[in-house]
Amino acid sequence: VPPAPAAPAPAPAQAPAPAYGSAGEALTGYLQEQATAFLRGLSLRGESETGADVLLRGSARRIAGVLHTYAPLTDPAWAEPLRSELGWLSTTLGREPQYVGRLARLREALRRLSASGVVEPVLATAPAGAPAGPPEQPPATAPSSGNGGPLALGAARAAALLERQLTLARTRAHSAALQAMGSSRFHGLADSLAVLASEVPLTAAAAGPATAVLPPLAKQTYQRLADAAGALPLHRAAHPYNAEAVQASLGAELTADLQDAPWHQVRVLLRLSRYAAEVPGAGAPGVPGAPDDLRYAEAATLLQRHREAAECAAAVAAAARTPRIAPATAYALGVLHADQRHEVEAARFAFSRLWQQPAPPVPAQGARGE
Amino acid sequence: VPPAPAAPAPAPAQAPAPAYGSAGEALTGYLQEQATAFLRGLSLRGESETGADVLLRGSARRIAGVLHTYAPLTDPAWAEPLRSELGWLSTTLGREPQYVGRLARLREALRRLSASGVVEPVLATAPAGAPAGPPEQPPATAPSSGNGGPLALGAARAAALLERQLTLARTRAHSAALQAMGSSRFHGLADSLAVLASEVPLTAAAAGPATAVLPPLAKQTYQRLADAAGALPLHRAAHPYNAEAVQASLGAELTADLQDAPWHQVRVLLRLSRYAAEVPGAGAPGVPGAPDDLRYAEAATLLQRHREAAECAAAVAAAARTPRIAPATAYALGVLHADQRHEVEAARFAFSRLWQQPAPPVPAQGARGE
Repeated sequence: VPPAPAAPAPAPAQAPAPAYGSAGEALTGYLQEQATAFLRGLSLRGESETGADVLLRGSARRIAGVLHTYAPLTDPAWAEPLRSELGWLSTTLGREPQYVGRLARLREALRRLSASGVVEPVLATAPAGAPAGPPEQPPATAPSSGNGGPLALGAARAAALLERQLTLARTRAHSAALQAMGSSRFHGLADSLAVLASEVPLTAAAAGPATAVLPPLAKQTYQRLADAAGALPLHRAAHPYNAEAVQASLGAELTADLQDAPWHQVRVLLRLSRYAAEVPGAGAPGVPGAPDDLRYAEAATLLQRHREAAECAAAVAAAARTPRIAPATAYALGVLHADQRHEVEAARFAFSRLWQQPAPPVPAQGARGE
Repeated sequence: VPPAPAAPAPAPAQAPAPAYGSAGEALTGYLQEQATAFLRGLSLRGESETGADVLLRGSARRIAGVLHTYAPLTDPAWAEPLRSELGWLSTTLGREPQYVGRLARLREALRRLSASGVVEPVLATAPAGAPAGPPEQPPATAPSSGNGGPLALGAARAAALLERQLTLARTRAHSAALQAMGSSRFHGLADSLAVLASEVPLTAAAAGPATAVLPPLAKQTYQRLADAAGALPLHRAAHPYNAEAVQASLGAELTADLQDAPWHQVRVLLRLSRYAAEVPGAGAPGVPGAPDDLRYAEAATLLQRHREAAECAAAVAAAARTPRIAPATAYALGVLHADQRHEVEAARFAFSRLWQQPAPPVPAQGARGE
């Protein structure tokens, strides 16, 4: 359909619904766009690994997510193995940035917790990225009654220990990612995406109009999100300083995992919902429960912070199990662990307040995040 | 100038003002009541030390506080040494219950933090009140990678360490209190209070009517409270999870002290204000700034919680400086320290919310707390 000559004013008056075509066309268009982004990321990798990986992971996650939500529209024999490979790739590529983020978050937390500024100069001279050698020598002077000196020294040593461990983990993740990118498994995946860019194997259900076929499928995803978020202890979390997330600090690690898992699950469903809404025609007005992007983007940020803090707390607990660390180091790690569990609690608080606000009446479709 | 005969006016019509008499009479009545309570506490001591000490400390604090607020009404050569001795006594008697409360609070916090319940059974077998012997043996098995086991063991050992240290401190405080009660210094104080029960040396200013003389003096105390509370960082504290109180966790102890001191000062001024308002005639209607007792009682509870958490955090930091503790113990102490600093923050949050509510219009005089 050739575009009509731009008439006088706010062109299509009350905006007639955009022509999305069939569900298959809308989905194919979106998948091809993402596959193109993936291939562009691949070609960019020589210049900027970090920037390219953001593209690669973002498009891999979007393709996998959308194939999941709109599963009835594509051939499962093609879609399911592809989703599985995309999951493998985004996990593999995601590890290094996770360690980078974790170290930055913990460094910042230690800086904040050491208001006296004792940590900074010591950290500056710590051998960043040095191989993980002997864990730690006992302190030259035994901790004794004083005004915080030995404990502040512990903060510096905890920082150095985390720096070593997370830098080592990062280096390993980097090697693993490089190895994965050179593997025949990766080349097989890249080939699949190159093919996808030209042809998506659709089912008969994809022949219906996009605005009739996509919204009910998207709605199922939104509903799963609404159900999962509704099952969270939002009422308790919305009460500040409830100390729930910290309960797990000294319990078995299982406690934290059990407590955090439903929140992580909501984070994943939120992402699925946002990707589902990105397909043209899916977020057509009048679909109840469709995500309002601004609110969803903020919720996603909060649950991302929740996850990072939870993982940082786990990393600190792991560091505390390093043999032969000094008591002052262990003490600082304990403070840091509790601090990160409080960050978990703070993220839950903010999410609960946001989520319990009444939803805006009309769903909007807009900016793409993450 | 003799007051003009009250014209037609609203004066006695709207419920005749209670006859408080002169300021000196009102103050003397209150002081005698408190001195009697003190002497009753003294005679009760044979039966119930704890109950008696609550009476002794309560009346000692009230007499000292009221002598401070209404200082212009009594002979300073008599009042000032008496206040000083009362301060010595309430401090001396207050130490033991403080250690008891501190241990209870830390025990409860460790229980809460060890959601797995690992602490409880070990604590039950810990030799409560045993002398502080060798601080701790190294753990039979070095902390190694596992699922929280060694760290949970650390919680149990931290509990046992705190139990030992605080029980020892309690025992010492108990002995010091007993010694103080048998001293000639104490007998001198008891004699002063017995004399006070029959005669308070007043100044000329005390001859005026209670409702004219007392309110302006009380108001000065309320004003000091209002100024000190107004200078607190209430705006920041009212924002949950601001992490300010935890900043001090790994800094020099001075940081915590500097940060906490203004809050402790408000706690003391709040108590002074409540005692000042207890004197009959002091809280006469129409005195702006007179404390509304319910709100003040709640504020006092919150600032008491603030102080207890701050002192618990300091006790935990002190325990962490015990030589040769195991890293797992130190880790648990670090978690506990941060937890208590978060309790400090939570108390500030609640106080800020309470204090920033608009004050009720008419001051009430009522229940006596603390």
